[in-house]
Amino acid sequence: MSALPKDVSHEPTDGTNEQLAIDTIRTLTLDAVLKAHSGHVGAPLGLAPAAYTLWTQFLRYDPDKPDWPNRDRFVLSVGHGSMLLYSVLHLAGVKEIDAEGRPTGKPAVSLDDIRQFRQLDSKTPGHPEYRMTTGVETTTGPLGQGCANSVGMALAERYLAAHYNRPDHVVFDHDVYVFCGDGDLMEGVSAEAASMAGHLKLSNLCWVYDNNRVSIEGYTDLAFSENVIERFRGYGWHTIHVSNFNDTALIRHAIEEFRRTEDRPVLIVIDSVIGFGLQKQQGTAKAHGEAFDAEDVKGAKRAYGWDESKDFFVPDGVAERFRDAVAGRGREKREAWEKTFAAYAEAYPREAAEIERMRKGELPEGWDADIPSFEADAKGVATRDAGGKVLNAIAAKVPYLIGGSADLAPSTKTLLTFDGAGSFEAGSYEGRNLHFGIREHAMGSIANGMALSYLRSYTATFLVFSDYMRPPIRLAAIMEIPVVFVFTHDSIGVGEDGPTHQPIEQLASLRAIPGLNAIRPCDANETAEAWKVAMRQTHEPTALILSRQPLPTLDRAKYASAAGLEKGAYILAGDEGEVPEVILIGTGSEVSLCVEAHERLRAEGIRSRVVSMPSWHLFEKQDEAYRDRVLPPDVMARVGVEQAGSLGWDRYVGAKGAMVVMTTFGASAPIAKLQAKFGFTTDNVVKLAKDQIARRSSARDA
Amino acid sequence: MSALPKDVSHEPTDGTNEQLAIDTIRTLTLDAVLKAHSGHVGAPLGLAPAAYTLWTQFLRYDPDKPDWPNRDRFVLSVGHGSMLLYSVLHLAGVKEIDAEGRPTGKPAVSLDDIRQFRQLDSKTPGHPEYRMTTGVETTTGPLGQGCANSVGMALAERYLAAHYNRPDHVVFDHDVYVFCGDGDLMEGVSAEAASMAGHLKLSNLCWVYDNNRVSIEGYTDLAFSENVIERFRGYGWHTIHVSNFNDTALIRHAIEEFRRTEDRPVLIVIDSVIGFGLQKQQGTAKAHGEAFDAEDVKGAKRAYGWDESKDFFVPDGVAERFRDAVAGRGREKREAWEKTFAAYAEAYPREAAEIERMRKGELPEGWDADIPSFEADAKGVATRDAGGKVLNAIAAKVPYLIGGSADLAPSTKTLLTFDGAGSFEAGSYEGRNLHFGIREHAMGSIANGMALSYLRSYTATFLVFSDYMRPPIRLAAIMEIPVVFVFTHDSIGVGEDGPTHQPIEQLASLRAIPGLNAIRPCDANETAEAWKVAMRQTHEPTALILSRQPLPTLDRAKYASAAGLEKGAYILAGDEGEVPEVILIGTGSEVSLCVEAHERLRAEGIRSRVVSMPSWHLFEKQDEAYRDRVLPPDVMARVGVEQAGSLGWDRYVGAKGAMVVMTTFGASAPIAKLQAKFGFTTDNVVKLAKDQIARRSSARDA
Repeated sequence: MSALPKDVSHEPTDGTNEQLAIDTIRTLTLDAVLKAHSGHVGAPLGLAPAAYTLWTQFLRYDPDKPDWPNRDRFVLSVGHGSMLLYSVLHLAGVKEIDAEGRPTGKPAVSLDDIRQFRQLDSKTPGHPEYRMTTGVETTTGPLGQGCANSVGMALAERYLAAHYNRPDHVVFDHDVYVFCGDGDLMEGVSAEAASMAGHLKLSNLCWVYDNNRVSIEGYTDLAFSENVIERFRGYGWHTIHVSNFNDTALIRHAIEEFRRTEDRPVLIVIDSVIGFGLQKQQGTAKAHGEAFDAEDVKGAKRAYGWDESKDFFVPDGVAERFRDAVAGRGREKREAWEKTFAAYAEAYPREAAEIERMRKGELPEGWDADIPSFEADAKGVATRDAGGKVLNAIAAKVPYLIGGSADLAPSTKTLLTFDGAGSFEAGSYEGRNLHFGIREHAMGSIANGMALSYLRSYTATFLVFSDYMRPPIRLAAIMEIPVVFVFTHDSIGVGEDGPTHQPIEQLASLRAIPGLNAIRPCDANETAEAWKVAMRQTHEPTALILSRQPLPTLDRAKYASAAGLEKGAYILAGDEGEVPEVILIGTGSEVSLCVEAHERLRAEGIRSRVVSMPSWHLFEKQDEAYRDRVLPPDVMARVGVEQAGSLGWDRYVGAKGAMVVMTTFGASAPIAKLQAKFGFTTDNVVKLAKDQIARRSSARDA
Repeated sequence: MSALPKDVSHEPTDGTNEQLAIDTIRTLTLDAVLKAHSGHVGAPLGLAPAAYTLWTQFLRYDPDKPDWPNRDRFVLSVGHGSMLLYSVLHLAGVKEIDAEGRPTGKPAVSLDDIRQFRQLDSKTPGHPEYRMTTGVETTTGPLGQGCANSVGMALAERYLAAHYNRPDHVVFDHDVYVFCGDGDLMEGVSAEAASMAGHLKLSNLCWVYDNNRVSIEGYTDLAFSENVIERFRGYGWHTIHVSNFNDTALIRHAIEEFRRTEDRPVLIVIDSVIGFGLQKQQGTAKAHGEAFDAEDVKGAKRAYGWDESKDFFVPDGVAERFRDAVAGRGREKREAWEKTFAAYAEAYPREAAEIERMRKGELPEGWDADIPSFEADAKGVATRDAGGKVLNAIAAKVPYLIGGSADLAPSTKTLLTFDGAGSFEAGSYEGRNLHFGIREHAMGSIANGMALSYLRSYTATFLVFSDYMRPPIRLAAIMEIPVVFVFTHDSIGVGEDGPTHQPIEQLASLRAIPGLNAIRPCDANETAEAWKVAMRQTHEPTALILSRQPLPTLDRAKYASAAGLEKGAYILAGDEGEVPEVILIGTGSEVSLCVEAHERLRAEGIRSRVVSMPSWHLFEKQDEAYRDRVLPPDVMARVGVEQAGSLGWDRYVGAKGAMVVMTTFGASAPIAKLQAKFGFTTDNVVKLAKDQIARRSSARDA
């Protein structure tokens, strides 16, 4: 079992500014957690000296302009230690910015906000939440995510620097710092991200690892005995070991060493004591989240040499000196940058305007001018292929649209192939194509980090592997950032690869995520519309779900325009004015099957209607009148057709409607055999449609 | 860019047995993939020499008894290279065993089966599928999973050995071999699993890494330049480098070194050439999955010195010699083991009988004898707490029930605390509590591996983190193995931790997985019933979804017995014979809220009914009569109450029913504030129930 590390002796507060500030972070944390009866003190008590050192001596950050684009980023990956961040934002006097980017004049985090720690509608929720608290660069809490986000932020900086900097005008040159813990480093997502950061030689990236040797179940050596330093060297990182978390000189030297390192990311391992100061808990799992009482807090304050009678106490001058240290350097850097940017804007007005648009989340004029429209074609094209063409047409116009695939670009068709697109690599940070490797989880988290650094990011893999990256998809929805997650090979259409590669439940699983727009277009033209909708988003991520196999390009002269996609569902075939006898509802690859069935039914004189329903999410946003026009409540003879599980379909087909869906996992076989096996045939849809009509008639007759 | 490695010269077939067998694997693969127009040749062509060496010279495996419990396990984690496994199973003459464990007399994989590669209902699907083909130890394809499964298999062996072996009777001492590729090693799940295997010093585990330096997008150095050997040393593994994939002597020495290594797992890195033999494609990404034609195959055969005119050709004597080599050693080992086991059964009849039961997936007599029943109690108990008690009661009786938590045991309450339970660690493989560390994804995959080695495995974490482990949950369902995935902290009941930790969509996402039984019990007694159902499963995994907060223990004298859980949903309150005016449907923590509302409605003379609906999966398996009895189709005044998203609820509340559900992410606040904010109050449920009744009446009047 681990014991306390040697040499963590802590001088009681000597009245120096440094120690006062550090212990202010600690005592604010203890008071806040005690008052909330909830929260975590481990990281704040252990990493307070590192936070103090980084913020006051290194971080290029202007508390008056916390949205300055070239600021250094500080990510608290150990989000459960949120009081560390709130304390620092308070002491640094960071100013609040509202949702429209306007300063409110209020502090980002006031002492009152800290008193409201973990209360409803406070600015100090349990874990740091992006958009809720100014200064929070990303929502953290699910472990490993902040680490992986930071790789996206660091590579975004490299891309922006390569793309926009000019020899005399350096507009992007910031660093990204992360505080992380053993949980972060045990999670596979951080391993994937670290491997990629090493590969890309992101020398602007610094992870500070709080090596407190304690996790919830006990000492980390219960489950975690690897040599982290050796592992990270394997990834191509530079590593630095700080043996005493209270020694700010050692911490300073480590950060200086990071600043000097120009060819690789840096991991600083700080040996620390969890819950430092809490006499009964420190150094043990009890310090992680377990309750401590007012007496324990008083004991800790005594150990710090603090006045134990004072709660939420910031000694005179501490906040001022902290703020001055951060703001002095930050303001100077920011003002110098503004001069640089003004000169840049003069020399490169187009680029400067582009940067401004990018920051505001706007798209360039004519961004959609070259999006192709596709001719009717019975043989058609796979929506992954159409998607690739559309993506290329947009990306050529939007230089801040950048992304890639988890080693499947030839299959997902997401490679940017226009002149100069190139690969984003250590030697070529101007490249537009990211090669994420076979690392879906980190891909999603990195894309989130890129989006948080102004880029419009996209990812690509097979739909079934969305399971590998659900945590970042969820976080994109929570953070309301418009990442585009492209998923191809969207059904049993995958064919021979069989059940492990055939998504069944993934579509429902994505639809279940609040705020995520899952779109499954039915042909090339709906794919173009889907990309348009996705690009216009400023606050919603999109999951774009595309087929492997060719789908007929529908004749839009004969059927309704694909522009109907923006309403989520629309009447594709059948007269809107007519009361249909039966409604066939399809998404994606099954829409053309519905159209075929529809034509057969019409030929027999049956008034059928086809509703193409690419996005349930968008459809649910329409008003009731529109929804009832598309799916008249009086017409309950309905057939839903989708090569996926049935969950959720009852809403649209009703209790007695028919569904042609997957009720089991798929199988390994050529696609035509699978479609027949699982009932995705025109005959079957026609038969079910007639059954529906017959059942309704007999119900009426009865 | 990488080029071909040096020194991969390949002598044309010299007529030796070894080279003939190796090239048989290669040519069968080429012929099968060519015929199917689909499949992957990379691993089979590159790893054929390693497979030959391992199977004929090391693997303790009896082709006549492929279910011999002490056999070495061979896992093809690069599942897309399935033809490697099918070829070897064919050459080794492995005999088929049917679903009941009876030999059929047929080969596991005949030459005809290989001709049916990737066809509907063949035994040779695109990726190897457990239960479909004898000799496939686990379903592989989603990358990284086979690697992580193998850690579960290896630790299962350590546990079984520690628990059952006696000084003179060694009944468990097998090894686990994995063939893996760069994709496996890039995935975070394998990183987590490797770190844990190193921590546990699993010296019975050997991963053979096909270092072919090519992935789908191109050379792996596009995305993967880490030093794998240094990384694995960091994990505490022994590493061995084989510089020439065709040099079977080097491979043999490496495996011998693994066999000699007694204190850690072993990684053998074999530098190979992808698509070896295909003159135009070898060593490039084209060899990965890209189509090649008949001419290319002929060219490869010429390069091997093969008769290019022959397809699916196994030269005389090759299969016989291969089989003799495998079976000779395997039979001897197996027969010796049977003698050992017979002696063991005599000396330790209880243990031997237990092993037999375990192998058959049966439970010991009286396994459920000590499961507590819980007294009615308004204050009640969190279902996580009840779950912990029930689990302990069962585990004390079922020595092959073993599992653990991803560093949350104090929160998930899954620690086994009875005498002798202890921790499973390198020094104590008899321990019953696994400490998975903060590695949810590997935890799931390792639990699958354990289940494949006869153990009844369980895992535990928070419900929101089920997102981190969806791929193995899905695979447990595909493989039909009865792993129990415990998820606690199942709703906004999480409270202050906020949106990142409050599951909203996870319940729907789990319900969407075919064959997974997601159960959300409403109180302590339903929790006991849920564990009973889970333990009785032989072919279905269970997701057990438990609350953080206390839930009233319902008075089962007044309300229906919790045994109704086994039907998925049952009438909890309200007379079955009576036609209710309104039905309140709840799951988990919301059932007691429904009961409170019900009592208020009854007091007002309203005939309400409460349906507790812990498992949609089980309810859908009931016949229509039962389902209509519980939810009469004529009574469409319904209120569904669940602290989760609405997806899927329409099926039970109908188009006009009311739902009290979550339509957004949650928030950080104390639980009572959240319940009020989101409408989970008795007042709200009562109001909605009355609205429902009023709306139905007015509809009838109209």
